Amino acid sequence: MKCRICGKKAVIHLRQHNLALCREHFVERFERETLRVIRRYRMFTPEERVGVAVSGGKDSLGLLYLLHKHGFQVEGIFLDLGIRREFDYSSLSRQKVEAFRDRYGIPVHIVSIAEETGKTVPEWARQRRERRVCRVCGMLKRYYLNKTAYERGLGVIATGHNLDDEVATLLGNTLRWDHSYLVKQGPVLPSPHPKLARRVKPFAFFTEKETALYAILQGIDYVEVNCPFSEGAKSRLYKHVLNEIEVVSPGTKLRFYQEFLRFQREHLATPQEVQYATLRECRICGMPTNLEVCAVCRLRGLDKVATETPNP
Amino acid sequence: MKCRICGKKAVIHLRQHNLALCREHFVERFERETLRVIRRYRMFTPEERVGVAVSGGKDSLGLLYLLHKHGFQVEGIFLDLGIRREFDYSSLSRQKVEAFRDRYGIPVHIVSIAEETGKTVPEWARQRRERRVCRVCGMLKRYYLNKTAYERGLGVIATGHNLDDEVATLLGNTLRWDHSYLVKQGPVLPSPHPKLARRVKPFAFFTEKETALYAILQGIDYVEVNCPFSEGAKSRLYKHVLNEIEVVSPGTKLRFYQEFLRFQREHLATPQEVQYATLRECRICGMPTNLEVCAVCRLRGLDKVATETPNP
Repeated sequence: MKCRICGKKAVIHLRQHNLALCREHFVERFERETLRVIRRYRMFTPEERVGVAVSGGKDSLGLLYLLHKHGFQVEGIFLDLGIRREFDYSSLSRQKVEAFRDRYGIPVHIVSIAEETGKTVPEWARQRRERRVCRVCGMLKRYYLNKTAYERGLGVIATGHNLDDEVATLLGNTLRWDHSYLVKQGPVLPSPHPKLARRVKPFAFFTEKETALYAILQGIDYVEVNCPFSEGAKSRLYKHVLNEIEVVSPGTKLRFYQEFLRFQREHLATPQEVQYATLRECRICGMPTNLEVCAVCRLRGLDKVATETPNP
Repeated sequence: MKCRICGKKAVIHLRQHNLALCREHFVERFERETLRVIRRYRMFTPEERVGVAVSGGKDSLGLLYLLHKHGFQVEGIFLDLGIRREFDYSSLSRQKVEAFRDRYGIPVHIVSIAEETGKTVPEWARQRRERRVCRVCGMLKRYYLNKTAYERGLGVIATGHNLDDEVATLLGNTLRWDHSYLVKQGPVLPSPHPKLARRVKPFAFFTEKETALYAILQGIDYVEVNCPFSEGAKSRLYKHVLNEIEVVSPGTKLRFYQEFLRFQREHLATPQEVQYATLRECRICGMPTNLEVCAVCRLRGLDKVATETPNP
C-alpha cells in the first residue's frame, strides 16, 4: 500500500477514512488533527498552562510530547498508585515516565498515593473490603489529579483518552441509558467549580491503533502492559465487541462517537448547559465535594479524627 | 436446578431474572407476562381483530398460538416471498404455516408476492440490481402486510419480534444515533394513517431463548433455519455482540431495552408525540405513501404504465 499523499510506502491504512499514509504524512496528519481538535473544541490556548495526566502509556506520553513539541505550556502529572502486582506495574510506569521527563526535559510532577495517604491504592481497596479496586482507584486518582492541578495553578487537565476509550465508555453509558452521564460525555468537560480544572481529551477522535503508532514513530518508550486490575473490566469487553463491529463496518467507532456528539448537541443539553450539583468545599481539605467531607477525607478517616479533636 | 415456585425440575434458568422454572410455571409466567405487556402498552383489546404476521418461525407462530389460546380475535398473515435458496426457504416456511393453520384451526391468509406482483422477492432484487435483497424484501413485506390488514379490516398487526430482535435494532439505531428511529422504536408503533394498522410486539421483553422454549413446550412445529439472505446482516452481528455482553452481565439486554424506553419517554418525544410526515394516498393503488406513487407501484413500473395509458 502506498501513501495517498506522496506515494511512498504506507505505514498505516486508516480503514475508517480509507486512507493509507507513510510515516511522515501520518505524523503530520496526526499532529495537525490534534491541533485542530484543540482549537475546534476550545480546549486550551498557547497562553494557558496545561496539566497532562500521564500514566506511562502510549496515549498520555504521546500527548504530552505532542503538546510540548507544538509549544504549549505543559507539565505532566503522574500518580504512583502503588500497584505492585504483575511486573510491579506502578514502578514500571513510574520509571518510564521519569525516563521520558529526563529525555525530553518536560516537567512531570510525581505524586505518590502512599506518601500522600499512608497506603497504596490496593491497600485502601483491601481496607474497605472493596472487591473492585477500580472504584477506589478512580476516586483517589480524580482527587489527587484535581488537587495537584489546583495547587500548581493549572486550569486545564488534558488526558490521553482515545476513541477506543471514549466509545467503550459511551457504550456502557448507552447500555444503561444513563442520562446524567450521556449529557456530559465528550472531549471537553467544563470546570464545575473554580478549584476544579477543565478536562479535555485531544486524542478523543483517534483510534488506539493511531495513538500507538504515533508514540512508536516518535520513538517514545512507554509501558505496554495494562493495569493488572483492569483484567475483568467492562471497558475491555466493550472495546472487544466494538472492534468486532469495526472489522465488519470500518468507521463504526468514529461515527458512533461523532454522531453521539451531534445527538447530544441537538437533543440533549450541551455540556455548557448541564446543571452541576452545587459543590461546596470539604470541611477538612477544602477541595470541592457535594458532602460536608469529601470522599477521600472520609476514606482516610480524617472526618473521625476531626470530630474527636475539633478545631477551636 | 429446581423451579422456584413448586420445587420440581426446572427447564430453564432465566439469568436476567435469576429465576429457575419448571415446564408448567415457565409457560404460565410466559403467557401471563405476554398478557400483561399487551394491557400495559394498550396493544389491543379482546374486542379488536388482530392480524399476526407469521413467518413460520418460533416467535410468530408462538404468538399466534398464545393469542388464540387466550381468546383474542386473531388471524395470521403469511407472505410467501418466493425465496427458493437453500432448502427452499419460503416453501418450507409456508408448509409449516399451513400445517399450523390446519392443526389449530386458526385462520391464516397466505399472500404470494409472485402472484401479486409477477416476480418473487429475489427476482425483484435482481431486476433492480440491488445487492441487498433485504431492502427490497422489507419494502414488499411492509406493503403487503399493510395492504392485507387494510383489506381485511384489521386495525392492528402484531409481530413476533423478541428482545434479541429489539436490542439488535436498538444497537444499530444507537451506533448511528439516528434520532428519527430512536424516537419511534418500541413495543408499539401507533398508526400514522387510517389505512395503516398499528404495529405491536407482545414478545418484545422475552429473549429468543424464552420464545423458542415456549414454542417447543407447546409442541409447535416451526422453521428452524434463518432466511438465507440474512447471513451477513448487521442484525446478526449485533445479536452476537450483545450476547457476548449478556454472558458477562446477565440482564444487559433487558436493561438496555427497558432503560431505553424510559429514556425515550423522559428525554425524547413519546411515540404519540412524534410528528409523522403527512402521508397521502398512492395515485395507483391508494395505499399511504409520501410520494405521488408508492414505492411498490414504482418498483412494479405501474407509474409508467399509468402514464402511458391515463385513466379517462
